[in-house]
Amino acid sequence: MTVLTRPILEIDLNNLLDNYHSLQKIAGNAVCAAVVKDDAYGLGATNVAPMLYMEAGCRHFFVAHAVEAERIVSQVPEATIFVLQGVGEDSLEIFKQHKQIIPVISSPQMLAFWNANKPDERKPAIQIETGLNRLGFRETELARMSDVECQNFCLVMSHLACGDEKDHFMNGHQLDNFKRLKNTYFPKLPASLSASDGVFLGQEFQQDLVRLGAAMYGINTAPYRPNQMKNVVRVQAPVLQIETLPKGEFVGYSATYRANTDRKIAIVSIGYGDGLPRSLSNVGKVFFKVNDKLSEARIIGRVSMDNIICDVTNINNLEVGDMAFLADDFYTLDDMGRDAGTISYEIMSRIGKNTRYVRKLVFNR
Amino acid sequence: MTVLTRPILEIDLNNLLDNYHSLQKIAGNAVCAAVVKDDAYGLGATNVAPMLYMEAGCRHFFVAHAVEAERIVSQVPEATIFVLQGVGEDSLEIFKQHKQIIPVISSPQMLAFWNANKPDERKPAIQIETGLNRLGFRETELARMSDVECQNFCLVMSHLACGDEKDHFMNGHQLDNFKRLKNTYFPKLPASLSASDGVFLGQEFQQDLVRLGAAMYGINTAPYRPNQMKNVVRVQAPVLQIETLPKGEFVGYSATYRANTDRKIAIVSIGYGDGLPRSLSNVGKVFFKVNDKLSEARIIGRVSMDNIICDVTNINNLEVGDMAFLADDFYTLDDMGRDAGTISYEIMSRIGKNTRYVRKLVFNR
Repeated sequence: MTVLTRPILEIDLNNLLDNYHSLQKIAGNAVCAAVVKDDAYGLGATNVAPMLYMEAGCRHFFVAHAVEAERIVSQVPEATIFVLQGVGEDSLEIFKQHKQIIPVISSPQMLAFWNANKPDERKPAIQIETGLNRLGFRETELARMSDVECQNFCLVMSHLACGDEKDHFMNGHQLDNFKRLKNTYFPKLPASLSASDGVFLGQEFQQDLVRLGAAMYGINTAPYRPNQMKNVVRVQAPVLQIETLPKGEFVGYSATYRANTDRKIAIVSIGYGDGLPRSLSNVGKVFFKVNDKLSEARIIGRVSMDNIICDVTNINNLEVGDMAFLADDFYTLDDMGRDAGTISYEIMSRIGKNTRYVRKLVFNR
Repeated sequence: MTVLTRPILEIDLNNLLDNYHSLQKIAGNAVCAAVVKDDAYGLGATNVAPMLYMEAGCRHFFVAHAVEAERIVSQVPEATIFVLQGVGEDSLEIFKQHKQIIPVISSPQMLAFWNANKPDERKPAIQIETGLNRLGFRETELARMSDVECQNFCLVMSHLACGDEKDHFMNGHQLDNFKRLKNTYFPKLPASLSASDGVFLGQEFQQDLVRLGAAMYGINTAPYRPNQMKNVVRVQAPVLQIETLPKGEFVGYSATYRANTDRKIAIVSIGYGDGLPRSLSNVGKVFFKVNDKLSEARIIGRVSMDNIICDVTNINNLEVGDMAFLADDFYTLDDMGRDAGTISYEIMSRIGKNTRYVRKLVFNR
């Protein structure tokens, strides 16, 4: 018997690289940029970005904030790093220091700020609005720009609202808008419309550059069919204790679970303090491997900060120190997202930022 | 007009210290330990622990994992740090290196492991189970221990399931169990039953040592009456763009919001990548201050990784660069938790771990 206390987070960079290459094939002639914002969806931009730079020759990266670009810039010396949230007084200094970091300008106010403060003649990218109604120039704003102004960008981009729903009317609507605005205002500029989900919608959506994020991290961004990507994230946590829960007793905070019959429970060393969604309370699943057989167990009671309690009544021979599998190739963060009432993106972004994990990077090329 | 891009996280250590002192008064003669697990609920244990050590003379800390103790141990040289998840093969080395780090033993297996591997004669703490049905020795397990074994601990502790509900039957039930088990097996040991919520339940619950966590961080752990604690966390994010949303158009991923009339929207630079719960989609609130007047606005559409979209139709004179208030003294994380279908604890733990914030520590004593 082994006594263990720490959860384990395994990040499979082999599979991440394979996913990048698979997406590259689907994307045909489009340039494949890697989206490493939000610390590479929580998985660690300082691991992911240099790996893609060296192993896959990736030379275009997207982050949300300039501070995120700053953290990886020395690792990807010949790459261009686009900053989706653009530039402001609180980030200008970073653009001054690194010529390879390029702001994505999303409003007339931001463009005016850039033109008044830009450190050199580098051309920014421009985000245009095609239906998501989030960041980007509206057509009325584009119409007020001169031809000369319109030529002073290096890339025109937009973003799909419903790219993960193959037949959603928004996709064609946004593509039409994008083509029309691009041809009217930026006829000579390289164009980018799609993130991971749009790559699967066909060549028209791929344009000149695609921004690979979620799918590269193993998320199914085409959920209308089985996932073609490999799983990247695995989470385990040790069983700290196994006990009988007598009939009639309660479990966890606010006593939200009551045993109707005698149960066997396992206390597992992971909680929302490790990024496990608290919404898995009384509904989440974990898995155990006993004698190579995989068994499913339910989370009972509330997920607390450091622990969950699992009903293991039907699992024989489970022992203290055995590992519970929270996420793995057979139960991915997509599955967990469904059970937790959210999406894998949110869970991935949370889990990766916690420092109590034993962190294992899988990479052997 | 100012263009800004980064969200701001303000942690008010003045108020945190005041909360510690307020709780100390309520706790009477009990020793006040500080719970700094999960990186001080996400707020930064390496800021919180030394501040309480120096300014409040706090000499007892609780963390969940030994690695968390290791990160603060040099900052609190004369304090005792208790490790709630106990000790195992994956953490033994830390206990070997630091005599002031004390495991909380929660099972016979863990006790056997400690006795077989302990580096010296330091006495661990023992967790006993009184009704939460989480970690801790069950009575059947205590009954198998000898008198000598029972005397070989430095503290006996348990944890309340429903301490935030003043009149919940579990409180009296757990107190009775605790007193009975303590008197039977550990009559001479210092005792600890209560975390923040139990402190408000009166002297019997306070025993010899209370473990101050949530309430110290400003969370209302006695929600049956108005919060007596001061707010510790404030979150703001800048407006990147203000636009008209024409009637009939959709907002955000999966087009979950549609405008029934022309609206005015603000795109605000914060998202679930900064720890804002995605469950605030279409239900969350933000606040704006225009000419010193506070106005409320609804989040419309899905919360995305880096941005939210707010309906600001009824807010005049709002400008790009103005700050949206996500959490503040007038709308705390408790309020946000209610709106997001979770608890402030989970949100606090998430928000504090993100590195895109401009982080401001308020402290001036």
